[in-house]
Amino acid sequence: MENFTFYSPTFFAFGKDTENQAGEYVKRFGGTKVLIHYGGGSVIRSGLLDRVKASIEREGLSYVELGGVKPNPRSGLVYEGIDLCKKEGVDFILAVGGGSTIDSSKAIAAGTIYDGDFWDFYQGKRIENALPVGTILTIAAAGSEGSPDSVITKEEGMLKRGASGDAIRPKFSILNPALTQTLPAYQTASGATDIMAHLYERYLTNSKDVEVTDRLIEALLLTMKHETPRVIADPDNYEARANIMWAGMMAHNNSCGVGRSQDWNSHNIEHELSALYDCAHGAGLAVTMPAVFKYVMNHDVMRFAKVAVRVWGCQMDFDHPEVTALEGIEAFRNFLISIGMPKNFEELGAKKEDIPKLVEVLCRGDGRDGTISGFVTLDEDDCTMIYEMMV
Amino acid sequence: MENFTFYSPTFFAFGKDTENQAGEYVKRFGGTKVLIHYGGGSVIRSGLLDRVKASIEREGLSYVELGGVKPNPRSGLVYEGIDLCKKEGVDFILAVGGGSTIDSSKAIAAGTIYDGDFWDFYQGKRIENALPVGTILTIAAAGSEGSPDSVITKEEGMLKRGASGDAIRPKFSILNPALTQTLPAYQTASGATDIMAHLYERYLTNSKDVEVTDRLIEALLLTMKHETPRVIADPDNYEARANIMWAGMMAHNNSCGVGRSQDWNSHNIEHELSALYDCAHGAGLAVTMPAVFKYVMNHDVMRFAKVAVRVWGCQMDFDHPEVTALEGIEAFRNFLISIGMPKNFEELGAKKEDIPKLVEVLCRGDGRDGTISGFVTLDEDDCTMIYEMMV
Repeated sequence: MENFTFYSPTFFAFGKDTENQAGEYVKRFGGTKVLIHYGGGSVIRSGLLDRVKASIEREGLSYVELGGVKPNPRSGLVYEGIDLCKKEGVDFILAVGGGSTIDSSKAIAAGTIYDGDFWDFYQGKRIENALPVGTILTIAAAGSEGSPDSVITKEEGMLKRGASGDAIRPKFSILNPALTQTLPAYQTASGATDIMAHLYERYLTNSKDVEVTDRLIEALLLTMKHETPRVIADPDNYEARANIMWAGMMAHNNSCGVGRSQDWNSHNIEHELSALYDCAHGAGLAVTMPAVFKYVMNHDVMRFAKVAVRVWGCQMDFDHPEVTALEGIEAFRNFLISIGMPKNFEELGAKKEDIPKLVEVLCRGDGRDGTISGFVTLDEDDCTMIYEMMV
Repeated sequence: MENFTFYSPTFFAFGKDTENQAGEYVKRFGGTKVLIHYGGGSVIRSGLLDRVKASIEREGLSYVELGGVKPNPRSGLVYEGIDLCKKEGVDFILAVGGGSTIDSSKAIAAGTIYDGDFWDFYQGKRIENALPVGTILTIAAAGSEGSPDSVITKEEGMLKRGASGDAIRPKFSILNPALTQTLPAYQTASGATDIMAHLYERYLTNSKDVEVTDRLIEALLLTMKHETPRVIADPDNYEARANIMWAGMMAHNNSCGVGRSQDWNSHNIEHELSALYDCAHGAGLAVTMPAVFKYVMNHDVMRFAKVAVRVWGCQMDFDHPEVTALEGIEAFRNFLISIGMPKNFEELGAKKEDIPKLVEVLCRGDGRDGTISGFVTLDEDDCTMIYEMMV
């Protein structure tokens, strides 16, 4: 196990009706003037936004609001939010929504008290200070409710890049599984896929002797394997949604990813897809992961055999572990298809002829040197072949 | 899943040589005058205490010290520590040791800034304020490095009682697995047993549909099952000790225990043993748990069958799940014996004729009403039979 530090100071309030405590938590964590940041329709239609505002008003706090966050959140709205916060003297950002809204809120929180361009943070500058952020989560997916990370897309060149820093970890996150019950099945499944991707990205490690985190990752994958089909079959299943929601947080607050190298190449390869085609991130990952895994499998066949046996219930072929390894990847792919995820470029709305462009942005964009690194270092030829496997 | 809140803001520094950063972390978390609190011999002999002091001096901080913490830490030393802290104007408590030292430090931290008798907190009063506490852990066991809990024994009547509050959660905990390499095998095994007990106490729940936390608990039990024999066979196995150390923290910071009722009757029943005989807490649990589990098994046979199959590798007997359930308990008991733990009263140094006294203190001490509650509510007759099963 590698040396590490771990710090996850977010306060979580989990369960039914917890959104009505939003004002109380904003106050506890020092907010007086709040920016309520959200996406659009469903948060308003469901009455959630009104309940949150009422909760804030009950505590005698004031707020301004900014809606309009889109999936794969854009830098344009972040700039708008920063201007609004500066103008209004906002001292707390409350995200009401999913990963996109939370990531946009984190960017606004960091940008508001930074003299330069917030995009600096998405080009490698560490985030040291930010306004406090709270979240009310409406989809189990990105894990941004318990993470120090944010991903934003810059319209110019459609660059999708991440930033990180303990300063943007949410002070509190409200997780009410019932809020996710109105999601369309496709979004629920995309979220579940994203959670499983966060687990696989941590599972694919070059560190040795990391049984405790291997086991924790497997535990969360087994949970997702069991609970996701229950929710797809019955969207009102609160209990299954609750299990998924906690798994989603645990998958990405890094308690199961400490002390080991991680991969993140599936995310890197997918980011170009959702940036170019604006597809759901999870759906993009569903097409990306099986291709990446098959391509890199031989780098550590026993690791892929292990997840095949322990999570996917495959019988170990001791004479031909590569057979078991492949069986596990196919089982995962079939699982993703069974919950309604796309299986190839066509179903995702991606185009084969764009592959050279995708590879160019992926491997050369933003100052990269022609490779992306992780479990295996991949060059432009590797990435081209992986994208071609998805067609 | 039940509604819950979860808050684990401790900063963890994990790995080789991390104790040399103690001073840096004390400073980061606001300490200027430190009480270094520890047990005795090994911390001094190994040079650990000197390294910690040097680290504190490098940061320009001052300290006083108080050694002498014993297993099952006593209230007498806590009072001494409180007096010392008040006299010296201490503003940070640094525990260097295991769960006993950390628990004693937490009690001192709470008592120093409380006007009344610190024992109030161990009789049910919630701890709202305390001096900040940091820890340098020397044994993987109690999980106190990441928990809001402290257990202290009052000499008068040998009452062993717990207190709790977020204010006594460590601000930072330094976990260097190498520091545990010099432990005698019996202590290592006792610590491992304590960790597994923290997992079983959470596993035995009356809450339904809690797959995510069931799976996380099983993951940590599987880790302990695999790693503990490796350490017993080779005390210098850093990697196995590292896996155990992180499992021990995760077992007790409650990330795997949220949203579900828990048991804690094995701990209650054991506490009287270690209070009366001063045996190692883990060793007491090794004798207690199999008896308790057999006694309460029929309350939820399928739960015991589940852990038998998923953790202990038993084949499910679908016609007679009670056979599988019992097989799992026996497998756990045999495991504990195999790592050197005692299997009955005699090996523990307990006496059959003391059972009435044990039951009296357990069920009637400290204002209890003749029962202890948990997975199953147990009365004096139940507890008598359970102690008799251990003979």
